[in-house]
Amino acid sequence: MKLWVTCLAFACVATLASAELFSSMAHLETALYAERDIAVAIQDYIHEEEKRLDKLKKIASDFADHSEAALAGDKNLLANPINAYLYMKRFTLDWDKEVAPNFQSDPESAVHKKIEELKGYLPNYDDLRGAVTALLRLQDTYQLDTNQLAQGRIRSMMAKQMSASDCFEIGKMTYNNDDYYHTTLWMEKAMNLVALEKNRTVQRMDILDYLAFSLYKQGNVERALVLTNELLALLPHHTRAQNNRKYYEKLLEEQRRKQYRRGED
Amino acid sequence: MKLWVTCLAFACVATLASAELFSSMAHLETALYAERDIAVAIQDYIHEEEKRLDKLKKIASDFADHSEAALAGDKNLLANPINAYLYMKRFTLDWDKEVAPNFQSDPESAVHKKIEELKGYLPNYDDLRGAVTALLRLQDTYQLDTNQLAQGRIRSMMAKQMSASDCFEIGKMTYNNDDYYHTTLWMEKAMNLVALEKNRTVQRMDILDYLAFSLYKQGNVERALVLTNELLALLPHHTRAQNNRKYYEKLLEEQRRKQYRRGED
Repeated sequence: MKLWVTCLAFACVATLASAELFSSMAHLETALYAERDIAVAIQDYIHEEEKRLDKLKKIASDFADHSEAALAGDKNLLANPINAYLYMKRFTLDWDKEVAPNFQSDPESAVHKKIEELKGYLPNYDDLRGAVTALLRLQDTYQLDTNQLAQGRIRSMMAKQMSASDCFEIGKMTYNNDDYYHTTLWMEKAMNLVALEKNRTVQRMDILDYLAFSLYKQGNVERALVLTNELLALLPHHTRAQNNRKYYEKLLEEQRRKQYRRGED
Repeated sequence: MKLWVTCLAFACVATLASAELFSSMAHLETALYAERDIAVAIQDYIHEEEKRLDKLKKIASDFADHSEAALAGDKNLLANPINAYLYMKRFTLDWDKEVAPNFQSDPESAVHKKIEELKGYLPNYDDLRGAVTALLRLQDTYQLDTNQLAQGRIRSMMAKQMSASDCFEIGKMTYNNDDYYHTTLWMEKAMNLVALEKNRTVQRMDILDYLAFSLYKQGNVERALVLTNELLALLPHHTRAQNNRKYYEKLLEEQRRKQYRRGED
């Protein structure tokens, strides 16, 4: 682009009527088109940013409504262990998944610091794990059905319904505690729910991954293989699933051989 | 916050009517207030972000209007060396000062890459320096008055008026070329203009800093000292200005002594 300016300097000094020389140059027209296109690109950017802010507006409005209702009167809301779990999840898993990515702010800004400070008063991941433990202890003690719990029902008490993600996250936590019994119960429920969701709150393949392995750990190798095949249909290059399939097939083959030998005895 | 969950677990297992225990806890109320305050903080954040986007909307609209006008007919617009300088400044200094800080985007995003690509077709800092050189050569050749140029007048040709910042940036570039003659002319003009600006486009202390030193370099030590004192009234701890003041005072003292001796001879 130095050419522009060299020409311009010459044109200006030589004659004040330098107009034609500069304006006829291809470079100038290219620059003007680029300026016009940049205006469009900035407008696109603004549009994307506005969508991000709309999501945050909805979240802020949810927080405002919920806290207002709970502070105004509905103080028993969180006494229900299902609501308590969903409340803990909201400020831990859901925050990290939905709020944090939409909240792009300078860590040094006043608003960023304010929110970080307030987060200190909100439930954390320890509280979340505690809420899940409480819910499962209740489920075991009163032999409550997972379907009913997921519908928000604890005998006559009613709470919010759970999403596939809500069930999936319970299953993930029990999985990490090597509790494959509860993992199987809650991942099965997550599978049922995700099939009914329009806006899926969790990926089917993620559920399949946990559920298949928990079923194997619970001794149901046959169904573990079926689900692993389903997972491989979605993700053909999933190395761990490929190895698991081989292993389950080998196990089933050995079982068949043993049964055959028993039949011979 | 672990206390919540322990209490909750106990309450749930002991009795389904766990309501009072959990909800009466001070922690819960604190959390609900924090949730309410976070809603307000997020709304404040959205408000700040919307102000940022409003600035970008204005910039996008300026770009769209300017390129449309220039492409539609006013092709001689940039043939005028003052308009050419202002056009180059717009995509270099002004972009870095006004657009870039309001454009917080992921460098990997499509819109960021698009704008970076388009910027390649726009004037760069080399073009800006070239435009200033052309303008000053014109000023010297035709002995044009700085006041008139700043008003956008080149004899009978009319261009856009310059702001204090526009004059200041010309002065800064000539200063970096050790051209103190032009620096003095354009910084003086910037000083006049900034006094009239409602929304100051440049800081008075920045002009004083360059102007004082250029005046010294041009031999006007007395006025250099006056302006350095003005600068120190605004910035009392400015070390370089403090040293310059001492130096100018010493020089003036020496001058006075020499004059005195001459008087004695």
